[in-house]
Amino acid sequence: MENSHGQQTKKLVPGLIAALAGSAAVFTWIENNPDSLSEAPPKLKNTQHDTLKATGKFFKLEEIRQHGPDSDRPWIMRGNKVYDITDWIESHPGGKVILRAAGSAVEPYWDIFTIHKKTDVYQILEQYLIGHVDPDDLVDGQVPKGSIEDPFSGDPIRDSSLVVLTDRPCNAESPMSGLTSFITSTALFYVRHHFWVPQIAKESYKMTIDIGDGSDEKTYTLRDLQTKFPQHTITATLQCSGNRRAHMNEGSGRDASGLKWGAGAISNAEWRGPLLRDVLADAGFDVDSPPGDLQHVEFYGEDTYSTSVPIDKVLDPRQDVLLACEMNGETLTGDHGYPVRALVPGNTAARSVKWVNRISLLEDESQSQWQQRDYKGFGPNETRDTIDWDSAPCIQDTPVQSAITTIRPDQNNDRSDSMVVEGYAFSGGGRKIVRVDVSIDNGKTWTQAKIEPHKHLGHKTWSWSLWTHRCRRPPADSCVIVKAVDEAYNSQPDSFGPIWNFRGVLANAWHRVRIDKLFQSDTD
Amino acid sequence: MENSHGQQTKKLVPGLIAALAGSAAVFTWIENNPDSLSEAPPKLKNTQHDTLKATGKFFKLEEIRQHGPDSDRPWIMRGNKVYDITDWIESHPGGKVILRAAGSAVEPYWDIFTIHKKTDVYQILEQYLIGHVDPDDLVDGQVPKGSIEDPFSGDPIRDSSLVVLTDRPCNAESPMSGLTSFITSTALFYVRHHFWVPQIAKESYKMTIDIGDGSDEKTYTLRDLQTKFPQHTITATLQCSGNRRAHMNEGSGRDASGLKWGAGAISNAEWRGPLLRDVLADAGFDVDSPPGDLQHVEFYGEDTYSTSVPIDKVLDPRQDVLLACEMNGETLTGDHGYPVRALVPGNTAARSVKWVNRISLLEDESQSQWQQRDYKGFGPNETRDTIDWDSAPCIQDTPVQSAITTIRPDQNNDRSDSMVVEGYAFSGGGRKIVRVDVSIDNGKTWTQAKIEPHKHLGHKTWSWSLWTHRCRRPPADSCVIVKAVDEAYNSQPDSFGPIWNFRGVLANAWHRVRIDKLFQSDTD
Repeated sequence: MENSHGQQTKKLVPGLIAALAGSAAVFTWIENNPDSLSEAPPKLKNTQHDTLKATGKFFKLEEIRQHGPDSDRPWIMRGNKVYDITDWIESHPGGKVILRAAGSAVEPYWDIFTIHKKTDVYQILEQYLIGHVDPDDLVDGQVPKGSIEDPFSGDPIRDSSLVVLTDRPCNAESPMSGLTSFITSTALFYVRHHFWVPQIAKESYKMTIDIGDGSDEKTYTLRDLQTKFPQHTITATLQCSGNRRAHMNEGSGRDASGLKWGAGAISNAEWRGPLLRDVLADAGFDVDSPPGDLQHVEFYGEDTYSTSVPIDKVLDPRQDVLLACEMNGETLTGDHGYPVRALVPGNTAARSVKWVNRISLLEDESQSQWQQRDYKGFGPNETRDTIDWDSAPCIQDTPVQSAITTIRPDQNNDRSDSMVVEGYAFSGGGRKIVRVDVSIDNGKTWTQAKIEPHKHLGHKTWSWSLWTHRCRRPPADSCVIVKAVDEAYNSQPDSFGPIWNFRGVLANAWHRVRIDKLFQSDTD
Repeated sequence: MENSHGQQTKKLVPGLIAALAGSAAVFTWIENNPDSLSEAPPKLKNTQHDTLKATGKFFKLEEIRQHGPDSDRPWIMRGNKVYDITDWIESHPGGKVILRAAGSAVEPYWDIFTIHKKTDVYQILEQYLIGHVDPDDLVDGQVPKGSIEDPFSGDPIRDSSLVVLTDRPCNAESPMSGLTSFITSTALFYVRHHFWVPQIAKESYKMTIDIGDGSDEKTYTLRDLQTKFPQHTITATLQCSGNRRAHMNEGSGRDASGLKWGAGAISNAEWRGPLLRDVLADAGFDVDSPPGDLQHVEFYGEDTYSTSVPIDKVLDPRQDVLLACEMNGETLTGDHGYPVRALVPGNTAARSVKWVNRISLLEDESQSQWQQRDYKGFGPNETRDTIDWDSAPCIQDTPVQSAITTIRPDQNNDRSDSMVVEGYAFSGGGRKIVRVDVSIDNGKTWTQAKIEPHKHLGHKTWSWSLWTHRCRRPPADSCVIVKAVDEAYNSQPDSFGPIWNFRGVLANAWHRVRIDKLFQSDTD
């Protein structure tokens, strides 16, 4: 059902601005900084241009490029202006990520980190103006000549059956074949990126651990992580907080912000690596009698993404929090965090940080927008305009969920009106699925689906359960509905209206599928 | 709302048969052995009477009474027959509880343990017939003369504001005043008994621990439990699995079996005692590296109730499983488990065994009916006739719940149409309540209630959250509705029909209260 978008292959767009002007950038804009939606992007103001020209403060591109990330005085360009950001770096709310643009133009990054597209940000930057790009190095007097590196150029070539929602950054659902086997193959595992895929060389990779007591940080190579510690294998499902947002929009008649994920922003894999608990112990942290003041573990990804989880989750060996170095028996792929990702089973996937290169123990939870804003659930009445972001906790553990992935004729049954309904069911916190109810008469009556007896690895049930239900094919105007129950006997809400939230997260109302719609699109 | 039943005080009924023939016994019959409902109680058959009379096998009551629980050969009477049950005790499915009737008549116990009222049970008993009661000691040739002890005679005198559903055994809801303060006073804490309240002398009380490795059992006095181990204090809510069953019946239009609890089969208290983990360690169990074969901890109550919880829950010190010796700062009362009860916070109250006197570590979970049958959730289509009892797990952790306890005019507001809605919200597993949504227009729109900032003691949020919502009074035909969200972002199902189950447990759909109904009964 979800894989009707057809083929999507990697596009390499040479012109950077063009590359970032597409729907992906628009998506990021909405996702990351919806507040800025009402603000028009500013036009370049060159009021100081003539003055500067008079004082001769023009720089050749060649010189600007030498003020890169590793230089003593990093510069950036915006339009035809040049800024020395050296003294701003320490104060930059996003940290040293600003250095990515050093020696280069800042616009492509701001097209991703759209939070910068605000008057006050422009004003801050203006304080660091040191001159202009030499007019000879400009195209049309505005855009610096020559190619600027496309940050997406290193993104991997992906399986053509992924259901791509945005290409740059890549956001793609797992296709039906990825959702109907207990282990999703790595190639078909859903992809949810905020940025491009970082290119990390195995040799230079370092994991830095800061145990928060003022002692020296410790670093670990990939080899250290794979050989110094016992390796643990678990099966665990990762689910995007926005999975089934499209269903929420449709069911409630209200559009939430964010990508319109169907039921495919979820996949299940086998993960292997050391327990983070063991690595923290090696780094000098007292994992058995931890100091009470450090309550959070923050993960930093090479892509500048960061977020934290409560320390109890990490310190309990039965919670199986790994630094995953392998996925499905092989080295991680770039899309899934090579060389190392955090794997926080039972929590929303946003906490399983990819390309993780730094872990800090903190008193407070991460101050990143992915902790403080993006992944929180609010009431159906609450809006972006009125919200107190601090009034809701960030999503960690997640509610019981289920979805229908296929409905097809039952080829093992002679009766032409028999059909097979298949799907997945999943709950956060390691809570096992104990029952799956299916209705083929719009919810009037229910029958139990057969839960497949797959082998879950780990101390709790971190993986989804796949289920199958065989029944007669109901009239064409019927809805097939699924709802699941987890081992805490939590059940799913009946409808989307009362759980709608403006971020469109936690969409776990019953999955209803019109039977006529399905037999049309599914020709299996 | 819940306390409209008026006063209920202790009744001491001298005639035992009469005492047990009331609604309490009928209730127990339905709760514990609904399968037997269709079977008519048997009439006494005295076919062997004449034969026995001829052989002279008549016994005086005086002699029969000497074959009590502590005798070498315990006897029981049924009608005018006498049975030597010595050789049956080991095979008795209910264990040594059968000894309670030794030296006495079995009928009053069978009126409670109604599972015995079956032909095959009568046939088993008949194998142990040894004679008859001397006709001189019978009334009307059938019933033994003299008073037989009323097992309920020791039940405490209870607060008259408890909302009594059945008196013998006592099942009573907490009244509104018990539901509207964070800590429910002990006198107003709801009562849910299967039998009478055991009379246990502090001096003779012993807790026996069997750590399951074949080593000698260890015993502890109450003083041992209170002085040999660090004492921990937690606040924890206990909720009957059947809380809000009446709402489920009403909302679904289908009657589930069991007492028709409203929203008052739940209360919150402060509990104090040693961690069970520490007591097991003292008894010789390796709590840090437990043997993998022992997965369950079974609690036995003096009332013959027994049930088990997974060992992980007990061994994790952050799960706060206590042997509670105090409730709200005082010695436990008889109704709440004096001298010691298990306190398994976050689990359904059925696992917090009262009057616990024995704890065993087992490979498998308890085989008692309270584990294997009574407290399980099934699908809305499943019935007692078709059910595979093993297809559902017993309830341990419980789903998110909320209820309205009061709706009253807002005396702090000059507007005559303003009102205050109050209630509780609670989730199992220590999951905190993060949001309470209230609707006063039948669920069309929602607003967030204010969650009171009470202090929760313990490693997780084991207590309910009380909430308050001030709003205008809606038209008389409106429903006020509440639904809560816990920290795993689980929400409550909209309606009862799809979660109805024949045992009537886990009733956690939205609580809907018609506004006209409330202002009628609540004259605050």
